[in-house]
This record gives sequence, C-alpha cells and structure tokens, in this order.
Amino acid sequence: MPQAVRAIDVIRKKRDAIELSREEIESFVDAYTRGHIPDYQVSAWLMAVLWRGMTRAETAVLTDAMLHSGEVLDLSSIAARKVDKHSTGGVGDKTSLVLAPLAAAAGVSVPMISGRGLGHTGGTLDKLEAIPGFSVNLPVADFRRVLETCGCAMIGQTSEIAPADRKLYALRDVTGTVESPYLICASIMSKKLAEGIDALVLDVKTGSGAFMKNEKDAAFLAELMVETGERMGKQVVALITDMDQPLGNMIGNASEVVEVIDVLRGGGLDDLRELCLELAGWMLHLGGVAKTVEDGKQWSAMMLSSGTALEKFRQMVGMQGGDVRAIDDPKKLPQARYTMPVLSAKAGFLFAMQCEQIGTACVILGGGREKKEDAVDPAVGIVMHKRVGDRVEAGEPLATIHHNSDAKAERAKQLIASSCEIGDAPPVKRALVHRVITKSGGNL
Amino acid sequence: MPQAVRAIDVIRKKRDAIELSREEIESFVDAYTRGHIPDYQVSAWLMAVLWRGMTRAETAVLTDAMLHSGEVLDLSSIAARKVDKHSTGGVGDKTSLVLAPLAAAAGVSVPMISGRGLGHTGGTLDKLEAIPGFSVNLPVADFRRVLETCGCAMIGQTSEIAPADRKLYALRDVTGTVESPYLICASIMSKKLAEGIDALVLDVKTGSGAFMKNEKDAAFLAELMVETGERMGKQVVALITDMDQPLGNMIGNASEVVEVIDVLRGGGLDDLRELCLELAGWMLHLGGVAKTVEDGKQWSAMMLSSGTALEKFRQMVGMQGGDVRAIDDPKKLPQARYTMPVLSAKAGFLFAMQCEQIGTACVILGGGREKKEDAVDPAVGIVMHKRVGDRVEAGEPLATIHHNSDAKAERAKQLIASSCEIGDAPPVKRALVHRVITKSGGNL
Repeated sequence: MPQAVRAIDVIRKKRDAIELSREEIESFVDAYTRGHIPDYQVSAWLMAVLWRGMTRAETAVLTDAMLHSGEVLDLSSIAARKVDKHSTGGVGDKTSLVLAPLAAAAGVSVPMISGRGLGHTGGTLDKLEAIPGFSVNLPVADFRRVLETCGCAMIGQTSEIAPADRKLYALRDVTGTVESPYLICASIMSKKLAEGIDALVLDVKTGSGAFMKNEKDAAFLAELMVETGERMGKQVVALITDMDQPLGNMIGNASEVVEVIDVLRGGGLDDLRELCLELAGWMLHLGGVAKTVEDGKQWSAMMLSSGTALEKFRQMVGMQGGDVRAIDDPKKLPQARYTMPVLSAKAGFLFAMQCEQIGTACVILGGGREKKEDAVDPAVGIVMHKRVGDRVEAGEPLATIHHNSDAKAERAKQLIASSCEIGDAPPVKRALVHRVITKSGGNL
Repeated sequence: MPQAVRAIDVIRKKRDAIELSREEIESFVDAYTRGHIPDYQVSAWLMAVLWRGMTRAETAVLTDAMLHSGEVLDLSSIAARKVDKHSTGGVGDKTSLVLAPLAAAAGVSVPMISGRGLGHTGGTLDKLEAIPGFSVNLPVADFRRVLETCGCAMIGQTSEIAPADRKLYALRDVTGTVESPYLICASIMSKKLAEGIDALVLDVKTGSGAFMKNEKDAAFLAELMVETGERMGKQVVALITDMDQPLGNMIGNASEVVEVIDVLRGGGLDDLRELCLELAGWMLHLGGVAKTVEDGKQWSAMMLSSGTALEKFRQMVGMQGGDVRAIDDPKKLPQARYTMPVLSAKAGFLFAMQCEQIGTACVILGGGREKKEDAVDPAVGIVMHKRVGDRVEAGEPLATIHHNSDAKAERAKQLIASSCEIGDAPPVKRALVHRVITKSGGNL
C-alpha cells in the first residue's frame, strides 16, 4: 500500500460514509491481497461497507480491483463471442449443465468457472463431479484447449483467478459480512469478468429457496450487477427468477445430472426446461448468434429436440475426463443404497414450500457440506413428486429420499415434511421469470 | 467460549441490532481475552457496535465483563472511602496531580491508576515521570502500601488490570472503532472500577481541545458513564467542563508539574485552580468527608492555602521514588535548552483557539508521542501568555515555546499561531463547568 493511502483512513472514511477514491480502493485491495493489511482491519472495513453501502462508482472500482488482483484470461484468440451465465444459487438449480453445451452448440463460446455448494444451495462443480472421472481442476492451458475445441468448458476457480475475492470471501464468511449486496456484486462480477467474457447472463433467484428471500433485495442486487458490468464494458442482463420451490424434481448431485441429461434429450420438467430456454435465449442473443431473445429460445428448443446439445455435452464430458457411458446409462452414476418416502399427512393442495429446508435436507443427507472440509456424497438426493399447486392425498408420497444412512434420512424426512404446506386450494401461480433487468431498464 | 455461544452469532446479532444477552457478552469478552476468538471477528463486532450502539444493560454487562477479565483490587482493608477522578483528556489538564494529594489530605483514599498521553492530549503518567526518579510502575503490593500510608498513590495500568480492555483498546485504535461512546464508557469504567473504588468523579471535556468537540456528545458519554457506574453499585458524578483553550498556562510535562506545585501552594491561574476546587469538592463529598460539595470546595481551598495538600504531594512523590527537592526548586526538573516566542500578527482580542492544534504542537516538540513507541521529552513545552478574551497587540507574544530543536519549534510555532483567532472584540465568556450530571439528573 503506498504511503499515501493508510488502511485506517480507508476504514474511517467508509465508516463516516465518505466515498472512497479509486486509488484508495485499489491500494486497499492490492495491499490486502499481498498480505500487507491484516485481516482485522479488513473485517472492520467490510462491516463498515455492510453498514454504509457503496456508490455505483465504488462498487465498479472494487470489482475491478478484485478482478485485477489475479489473472484475467485473454480469450481474444477465440473468434466467437464469449458468454457465461451465473446463478446466485438455489435448490435443484442445474441449468448451467444444460446451458454451457446448449449455447456452445449454437456457436457461442462458454468459458464457465463455477463454484461449489454454499449453505443450502447446490454447486455446479459438485454436480459435474458426480460424473465418474470428470475433472473440474484443469490447468488454464487445458481449459483453453477444451474451450477452443468444444466451445464450452466448465472448471472451478483456480488460484490465479481473483485471489482477492478468495481472501475476502473467506473473511466475510466468518465476520457476518456476507450479506452486503455491494460485496456480493464485487465477488460475483470479479470472478466472472476474469474469465475474459464479452457478456454475462445473470440468474438472480428470489424466494424461499434463494439467498435473497424477497424480490426487492434480488432486484437491487441484479441492478447493481448489471450496472457494474456495463461500467466495465460488458453486456450484462439479469433475470429475476422464482425459487419458491426446487427447480425441476431432482435435488442431489448424481440425480441432478440425470435430470440434466433428460432436458438435453428434449425432455424434463416444464419449469426447468422453460428456464433453460429463457437463459439460453439470452446467451444466444448476447453471443451474437440470434437476432432476438425469442429467436435464441426457438433455436435452443430445436437443439434440445435434435440431440445437438446432448452431443456437445458428451464431447465436453469426454474432454474433461468424464465417463461418457454414464450419459446413456444413468446406472453408471453413483446410486444411493436406500430410499425412504416422505408421505403427506393430509389431503389438499401443495400450497407452498419452505424451499431452503429442502436444500438443507439434501445437505444433511451428505449431498452438500455442513463444514467447508466435508466430503460430498454424490449419490444421495431427493426426488420431489409434487409441485406447488398439485393435488395431494393423505398418505401420498410428496418426495422420495435416496440415502445411505437411516438416521440422516429421518432428519431429512422431518425437514421436507415440515417444509410442505398443504392448503385447501391451490395458490396463485407465480411466474417463473419475474423480471428482466437490462442497462438502465432498457432492452439490449 | 462455551459451545452454545458462537462468535459469528454475536457479530450477526449486533449487526442486526438485536440486544445481546449477558451470557453472550461475557462469553465473547472472556474468549477474546483468552485468545480463543481471532482479532478479525472482534474488529467486525466493534464496527457493528459503533454502528448499532448498545443498550444501557449491554453497556453495563460489557463493562463488567471487561472489569472481571483481570484482577479487581480489594481495598476493603482501608477504612476511608476510596474515590478517584478521571478526565476524558484535554490540553494542559494537570488536575489529577493536584487532586490526588488534595483529597488524600482531607482523608479520602485516592487509588489512581492513570494513562499516558493519547493523540493531542497529555497523560498523567508522562507528567509524573517528569519528576526525577518518580516511578509509576509500582507492583500492586507497593501501590497498596503507598495508598495506606499516604492516602493516595498514582500508578500506570498493570498487566493484571482489565486485560480485555488492553486488547480491545489496541484493536479499536487500528480499526476506526475508538469513537463509540459505548466502547469508550466500557473502557474507562472497567479500568476505574478495577481500582476497588467506592465513587468516581468524571471530568468530561468538551470543546476544541477535547475528543468530544460538541457538548451533546460529551453529555451523552457522561450520562452513559454515570448510569453504567450506578448500575454497578458505584456513586458516579460527571462534570462537563470547558476545553476550548488549554487548562492553565503551561503545556508540556515538566512545566505542568511546575504549574501543579504553584496551585498546591495556593497560587495558579484562576481557571485551573477553580476546576481543581470543583472536582475536589465532589471528591470530598463523595468521599464522605464533606457534607456538601460547597463545603468540600471551601475545605479544599483552605488546604491549598495552608500548604497541607503540598505536604501530601511531597509525601507521595517521596514514597514513589521521586526527588522531593524538585518541588521546592523547579530548576531540578528537566529544562529545555531554547525558547522561541510566538508573536501575534495583529492587534485585537484573542477570540478563539483551535485548542487541539496547541496540544499537537506540544506533541511535535516531543512532549507527546506520534507513535506508541516514541520516547517523551519531559523538558519541552509551551507557555501561553494570553487567555481567550485577552487584549493582544501586534507583535506581542501569544506564547513561548520551550524546545530542544529549532525545526520542531518552527512547526509548533506555525500551529500555535494559526490556532489563535484574533478578533475585534472579545467573545462571550464560556462557563468553566457547563453541566453536572448525576444519577437520573438528580443530585447525589
């Protein structure tokens, strides 16, 4: 940190709600990444940011500083436009596994760097690793080779990408400062823009299974990310989408891969397929291969029906070391030993779900991590038999638990049963896509 | 920290403005003192406290937990009531050196544990150490012996007293969380109550030379400390006093000792003498040796005139290893080599002073510390020749700098000159004691 910028002054200014300069934010992030500022000063600053917020300019500078704390991929040798999609996390959200091959099949380049499950939500890397042999830890050179050959590649964050974010994220996690939308925005956008993309489609979840339980918070974060991306010269669109029930029927890593393959074969549950098409429509449009989002959707639907997207998935899985036979024969994916039904105590309509509880049930089964160090069991999971609004009879199964431990299954069963609210009538149906947010509210 | 109380939950609750329980605060302070919670979690919590504040109950519990993090002196073997005085810090504030012997001479026991200079303000320990040989680092057993024999004793904080405060204070200093009145209150009160006192007189400074620049903040802190003390079963009174100009004429450690001796001989500048009598009046009243504060003041004035207080000072200095000949012959105190006058650029009335700048000028001369590790030069200082409201001619000296370095003196001169505002008329005179705050606003 240059002598001119002192950590204590950066903390005090933010504490006193004075806007920080570019130099101050850049120096602060750089010095922290290099280990020249101790954690205890940064955590006080993070709490001050949670308290005072940030201006749009500060948010963009913070994102930029975190982005440039490490390597920024230069994918300019790839002629196609590079477009990625990022979700803020939900339950049963497996769209990334459909979208990367689908957009790549249409000629968009998709360099996707993803994360692991966080809290009650699943993670793309954990899902991919349910495919025997699939490696998410490719060196950057191999990542680039897969991307160039296949059109898409899916890996985990490397130590070279946004190291400032890795340090800051770990610190936020233990200091009660995760929730700031400004810090969430900088964390997501710095990692995504380090991929060397031209455009980004954001899926901002809202509802009982999302981190942002109410739509106002989700929309605020979405607008912040769109504006931050635009300030950094990228095309960004955000879809606010529903997470009041799991997306699709399957929750759990191996079973979500099965459901992904189902969608890639042209099947799949309506809501999951529909959301994939919406997001793909935007990816194709921003990727310059579809004139409108609607064109992109229609083309995407065709590529699902024709099997083109599935072939692309097969190619990527093969190039990343995965056993492609598992795509044709789901029995080659990890299987749980036991099943346990979750029965409805009464008759009526499934009125609502505490969706976060269903994600937590999957974590308890071993499908996610209670502590960072925990190993994930890819075989366990939950199959939902009812959607919100469905008629349910007393004693009818609401879900089936696939498990490897009776004790864990019992705990999961209680959680799932108590998460399902049975009413006398179906609720008003919620839209799958609540809003689309583009620059200054306009259309791209 | 018991498993039941997690640091992250304590941070989150405070962040979300939820009142913390006694168990939560006690566990948090205890675990931090023992090194079981890292600094980075505590600093996030401190910023959340600065943001959200604390209830009166939380403040008292925090004070109590910090107080009991270390040794609490048991002075019950001393029959006299134990009363201390604490100032929130100012420029030229040397009243402690007058008050300890003065109250002791009247039969009150004064176990005074003081601090060093902080920022632009002077510290009692630094002043005492200007007396050749004087030791402020007595072991507790010796402290007790001086107190029993002499009626007063003045030392620095030992490692056994309120270790939680020492850790928290150091962390607040580097994380921008010093300013919270709740944290200031807990810091001051935990140290003072660890002295085993029955009552406490607080001198809460307000004005350009104080930490609390405006009276509202000073009154808020004063009320908080009074209520916290009362909740802990102690009699506490707070005087809000003026710090818009230095207290007395002398600033600098050795010269302040000279001014103290002057007051103890029955002399001294009006404002300094008057404030000593006000504070002594309260100490004698709370110490049970004067029926009213006014009685205490009158008796104190007599003890200054009669030399009784000076004899008590001589006894204490001798028992703590100080050279008592310096009391009769100020030339035996450290002397600066050079003097430099600060002349008024124009004629008029001294309308106001930026009093903090004068304190800073003394620090620059070497009379205080710019960094914690700096040594203090006891000889340097500033003698003010004008008080606010005085008539000043162009070219007349406003102050004389006593220094050991021309370069430092030049910087100090600029600061002092620019701190003195010369106007066409004198300002409205400010009262020395703005308000007296006792329990629930009533009289004790």
